[in-house]
Amino acid sequence: MPSTSREVHLIRRPEGMPVPEDFGVVDTALPDITAGQLRVQNLLLSIDPAMRPRLSAGQPLNEPMSGSAIGRVVQSLNPDFAEGDYVMHGASFREFVNTEGRGVRKLNVDPALPPSVYMHVLGGSGFVAYGGLLAIGQMKDGEQVFVSTAAGSVGSVAVQVAKIHDCYVIGSTGSDEKCRWLTEDLGIDVAINYKKDPIRTALKAAAPRGIDVYFDNVGGAHLNAALPRMNVLGRIPVCGMISAYNNFGAISDPVTTLSNIIYGRITIRGFVATDFPELKPRFDEEMTAWVKSGRVKYQETFYEGIENAGAAIIGMLNGVNTGKMMVRLAQ
Amino acid sequence: MPSTSREVHLIRRPEGMPVPEDFGVVDTALPDITAGQLRVQNLLLSIDPAMRPRLSAGQPLNEPMSGSAIGRVVQSLNPDFAEGDYVMHGASFREFVNTEGRGVRKLNVDPALPPSVYMHVLGGSGFVAYGGLLAIGQMKDGEQVFVSTAAGSVGSVAVQVAKIHDCYVIGSTGSDEKCRWLTEDLGIDVAINYKKDPIRTALKAAAPRGIDVYFDNVGGAHLNAALPRMNVLGRIPVCGMISAYNNFGAISDPVTTLSNIIYGRITIRGFVATDFPELKPRFDEEMTAWVKSGRVKYQETFYEGIENAGAAIIGMLNGVNTGKMMVRLAQ
Repeated sequence: MPSTSREVHLIRRPEGMPVPEDFGVVDTALPDITAGQLRVQNLLLSIDPAMRPRLSAGQPLNEPMSGSAIGRVVQSLNPDFAEGDYVMHGASFREFVNTEGRGVRKLNVDPALPPSVYMHVLGGSGFVAYGGLLAIGQMKDGEQVFVSTAAGSVGSVAVQVAKIHDCYVIGSTGSDEKCRWLTEDLGIDVAINYKKDPIRTALKAAAPRGIDVYFDNVGGAHLNAALPRMNVLGRIPVCGMISAYNNFGAISDPVTTLSNIIYGRITIRGFVATDFPELKPRFDEEMTAWVKSGRVKYQETFYEGIENAGAAIIGMLNGVNTGKMMVRLAQ
Repeated sequence: MPSTSREVHLIRRPEGMPVPEDFGVVDTALPDITAGQLRVQNLLLSIDPAMRPRLSAGQPLNEPMSGSAIGRVVQSLNPDFAEGDYVMHGASFREFVNTEGRGVRKLNVDPALPPSVYMHVLGGSGFVAYGGLLAIGQMKDGEQVFVSTAAGSVGSVAVQVAKIHDCYVIGSTGSDEKCRWLTEDLGIDVAINYKKDPIRTALKAAAPRGIDVYFDNVGGAHLNAALPRMNVLGRIPVCGMISAYNNFGAISDPVTTLSNIIYGRITIRGFVATDFPELKPRFDEEMTAWVKSGRVKYQETFYEGIENAGAAIIGMLNGVNTGKMMVRLAQ
């Protein structure tokens, strides 16, 4: 058993875009575990847009940064955990952690799948997409569906779940390359590069039969463009997982087409993943099968090693990743 | 039986605010009714904001104007109607009408109430207020409720239904006199004169425990002010009955606080009266009892005589009425 663990600390608050000097790698003593404790070796760190605001306020200086991590129990004096268990927890940005198990959740990793998928398509972002469409959006088979940030971790699952339900699916994203991924690999019907084509006219052309469900990740100009296209009794689930951090500005852009909710009897509803716990067992079963069969696809970008965790945050904020950004500490 | 009926025609499309010369009173022959027909004497004509756009487009020239009317069957050769029946129908702006009964609905007028209440508090606007709060807004007893245009035909019923359900009720309206009516006569907790006090700061002060249900009749600045005050899982029913016509501009004003729907998991939902038919029997029973006991109050303004129907429209558009505007043709 190692007697030390390397950790990544925030050592200085960034001004604007973070730089490598804002982060420090610190070697810390790792005491033996005592009765009731377990030791977790972290395998994967999640790198999220939500981390940026915490660097300015919230994340203490000179402490290991917090965030979601997947690890493996390497030693246990706690009856609830056994050596070899996969776990998910919030004590990220360190190689090892001793814990009494509070906030540590066992992960039932399918042996045919890499643990990393529980960070995204089989984790929170996948569940938000699934429940946002089915529980909040009340999506029915064959409906007309529009998803913004369709190539993102939530959006890419949403468009694929909608296609599985035989919907006509329109997605918007910010590059031709992502548009190609959406149409050629994920099989959606129309992909709009909103940076090239004004979303309002592009969406009008892409939705000849209107929109029944708009899965909104961004608000602003996208919501403004979608509202006049909504069919009667249309639904707009508004997802808080990514837009809340990544697109806060966008979603607060003025929206001037709200009168459409009267004529169309439209429902707009903000939600979080805890709004539909009853869907979790069905999600686990269906999504696991879809990912294993390749019917639901995903993209991942890994940085290797704890010493690159700061660089991974900087890279994510600069958009270098394709799909979910993670740091891999061990296999 | 009379052999002629006076009708009001639109004889010229108004430019801007209508003037008396846009309307003409025409004496028309009234043939005897034939088998299957009935003759209705109109008692009350409803004067609505929705009439204004039809004067510019939709209402044919040199024909009796259409609109909602309450009448009494004075002669019937139709087995579905009997002499003396009260009816509601769309053949307004004339003293008498012969009809085969299509679009004519029998009104079950409570003998203790004037028929005019079926034009507002016991009619469409009352039902929209009732169902908007209870079915769409899912209002629970004791919640914090905010209603815009609270002194209007929909809003004034909404605030009173909310008070009956022991809610803390805030209403906004456009004059001190209406504020006094809301607090002193209708018993709401806080009335805001939005023309004197900026709605955003006034609402913040008026809602120390936030807002659970915002019954939105106007959108725009009011919706913008309400969104940051909404409690978690708050509901915003958006009523189409009056705002669609009266405040179209207002509801399309830019809204910049929509990001609150994510954090608060807020639902915004546009609706019309046909969205909750299952509530109609309970509404009829409860609202009839409340109106009879004086627990739900209302205001009415009458113009007298078919020759004043055009003047009533002009008056309504200039805001001369308090409460529901009607033209009385007969008792």
